[in-house]
Amino acid sequence: MDVSDFFPIWDDLTKEEQRQLMENAREKQVSPGLLPQQKNECEGLILLQTGQLRTYIMSPDGKEVTLYRLLPGDICLFSAACMLQEIRFDILIEAEKDSTYHVIPAHQFKQMMEQSVTIANYTNGLLSTRFSEVMWLLEQIMWQSMDKRLATFLVEESQLEASTTLHLTHEKIASHLGTAREVVTRMLKYFQREGWISLNRGEILIRNFDALAHLAS
Amino acid sequence: MDVSDFFPIWDDLTKEEQRQLMENAREKQVSPGLLPQQKNECEGLILLQTGQLRTYIMSPDGKEVTLYRLLPGDICLFSAACMLQEIRFDILIEAEKDSTYHVIPAHQFKQMMEQSVTIANYTNGLLSTRFSEVMWLLEQIMWQSMDKRLATFLVEESQLEASTTLHLTHEKIASHLGTAREVVTRMLKYFQREGWISLNRGEILIRNFDALAHLAS
Repeated sequence: MDVSDFFPIWDDLTKEEQRQLMENAREKQVSPGLLPQQKNECEGLILLQTGQLRTYIMSPDGKEVTLYRLLPGDICLFSAACMLQEIRFDILIEAEKDSTYHVIPAHQFKQMMEQSVTIANYTNGLLSTRFSEVMWLLEQIMWQSMDKRLATFLVEESQLEASTTLHLTHEKIASHLGTAREVVTRMLKYFQREGWISLNRGEILIRNFDALAHLAS
Repeated sequence: MDVSDFFPIWDDLTKEEQRQLMENAREKQVSPGLLPQQKNECEGLILLQTGQLRTYIMSPDGKEVTLYRLLPGDICLFSAACMLQEIRFDILIEAEKDSTYHVIPAHQFKQMMEQSVTIANYTNGLLSTRFSEVMWLLEQIMWQSMDKRLATFLVEESQLEASTTLHLTHEKIASHLGTAREVVTRMLKYFQREGWISLNRGEILIRNFDALAHLAS
């Protein structure tokens, strides 16, 4: 995917803005793990070409909860959070798979945002989209029981992987949902007793996708 | 407060933009309760002059949790959420006290945002600020125990009211924190046994502010 493919506003940009975006973009390739931006705080706007990224928050004592996933074609704004001075929270970003992306340095994108009303409003839209995802999560946490959230997670994971075999430890699932491993284990065993899944070491087999999807909905 | 007092970017606006903001603003006065915007979906950008607003979300079965409060001088963006098409969640807004505000109709502010890079970036900042407040809440919900959240709420409430006597039912507190009334009652009784508060009918007296602040921190 070219830089231009990521921006639905591409045709509304001036030739000069298009040139700046293309010239400033650098290609990167990463293996699973925290993104390099964690080291220098603010790498820049990430345009994900292949692979999968996960954004999450972490408590002072190391507990995690997943905010949302980024898939090929998505733009990651929070890897450039330093350009939005009113953002007062830390989001961690990790590659869940081998990934490739374009990155546009934050200070350069910020400059463009301050000069172009099209880019500023586009950034506004990106921010609103992410805000909506976090609100969805907040509503899930507040109003949904953990069995529904776990079922939702397994359904989504199965769709992401296009497989009914999921390579996930209970610990890992707990980190996604922001709960304790014991809670996940107890519920997975309940799902197993219902015949919806089978549990193997480090592996979950989905046996009744529809039942899980029904609980999730 | 004049419309100009609300915008730190006022001096960066063109005379025409300043004129438009001032001419489009209407003054409103409301009594405690849901804002009229709930009826027509999207009243506009609210510039709060006096009083106090509360933004919150509600579950399908009527449970609530407070997102944040707006005080005089604050701008409410979500009363104009319809102008941000990527926003896919509903935030309810109510006046907690008799309040007066200027309101700039959403379609007019949207038009200005689409033409002025200064206004677009300012809106970006507003959105980032509210996003940060929701992330703070999410972190509180995920990582803080309910006793800390209740102590934090009582401390904030006491500061907002500039009083150690709070007129709040247990039901009301539960709606702020997104929990059940029974949970609030149990913890308030615990705080009372510790000598930090006294409980009267519909009233909480704070007896040891420092102890609550210490638990909250």
